[in-house]
Amino acid sequence: MPKLVDREVRRQEILEVTWRLMATRGADAATMREMAREAGHANGALAPYFAGKDELVEAAFVHVFDRTNDRIRRAVVGKRGLSALRAFLVEVLPATEDTRLEARIVLPFCSRTVADDRFAELNDAAMRRWRQELRRLVAEGREDADVTVDTPDDVLVEQLVATALGLQVLALLPGSPTSADTQLAMLESALTALSPR
Amino acid sequence: MPKLVDREVRRQEILEVTWRLMATRGADAATMREMAREAGHANGALAPYFAGKDELVEAAFVHVFDRTNDRIRRAVVGKRGLSALRAFLVEVLPATEDTRLEARIVLPFCSRTVADDRFAELNDAAMRRWRQELRRLVAEGREDADVTVDTPDDVLVEQLVATALGLQVLALLPGSPTSADTQLAMLESALTALSPR
Repeated sequence: MPKLVDREVRRQEILEVTWRLMATRGADAATMREMAREAGHANGALAPYFAGKDELVEAAFVHVFDRTNDRIRRAVVGKRGLSALRAFLVEVLPATEDTRLEARIVLPFCSRTVADDRFAELNDAAMRRWRQELRRLVAEGREDADVTVDTPDDVLVEQLVATALGLQVLALLPGSPTSADTQLAMLESALTALSPR
Repeated sequence: MPKLVDREVRRQEILEVTWRLMATRGADAATMREMAREAGHANGALAPYFAGKDELVEAAFVHVFDRTNDRIRRAVVGKRGLSALRAFLVEVLPATEDTRLEARIVLPFCSRTVADDRFAELNDAAMRRWRQELRRLVAEGREDADVTVDTPDDVLVEQLVATALGLQVLALLPGSPTSADTQLAMLESALTALSPR
């Protein structure tokens, strides 16, 4: 049995490799055998770290969510209100290769919430954290007079979260994906609407 | 072999029963056996209508999408521009028991698009139809001076579609689902933003 710290480092290394395979091939299609190969382990050697496929998929979602949140934290540092809101949401949009790959994990995860209470609660907790942070930034925007619209803050926050989640579907469409330019224009339009003339 | 018309009627009857089971239990969890029982058929008697589970799930999505579009058509009759936009989007929001059930089908369907090109193309075609119709209504809104915002029409349309899709995730969360009241407030806020003061 490896030491606890080594174990957590190794676990994160496995996740950093396997989530990309799940994103590319689909979380359901990717097999434990392929993921073990990708992680440089003999088949079955993932077992000390993950009890099974469900546990690995769940850990991959948490890993991707942590990745996104780390990026958001770095992007928001030193900003407040409206400019922090912009920086936060840019990191969530599936407008780059990396965030498009993340959307390919988030979408199957969201779908599992329909039939799986554990996944639903994880997703719920993740969205509650986002709402809480966005609500704080909207309140700062009010203080700075960058948010002057009559709409209540919780409705504004929900609009921003819904737009980001909806784009995770639309950006992956094969024939008419929402382009990065359109996504950024949507974001600017949403932020402009916070202070109507 | 039943006559073609009877066959289509029977096929629709089966779908009207089975999609609700898929929505309740999850499309993956519901078995062909259960769905046959629900449809009043002996196990296996779905075979003349659907070659297998994938075909049934695909047909259920198309069925649900047709249901939504029929409802939209009826709601929009005799309306134009902004009031037609409102009527359209109200039918899409997961704000009623029926539309929440529909969201429970749409979400797993969207998720399958990640790994399944056929599902991705179906979803793409569905979203293209919505965009086309919404673009027409936004253009009417411009004629009526109910839409005056600077944002280009295709960006506005994408914002409306993304919000509707995002709500299909948020309204299903167990701990903090977006309430019907908040959804309707989001819609009004989005429509108000089309003509800033």
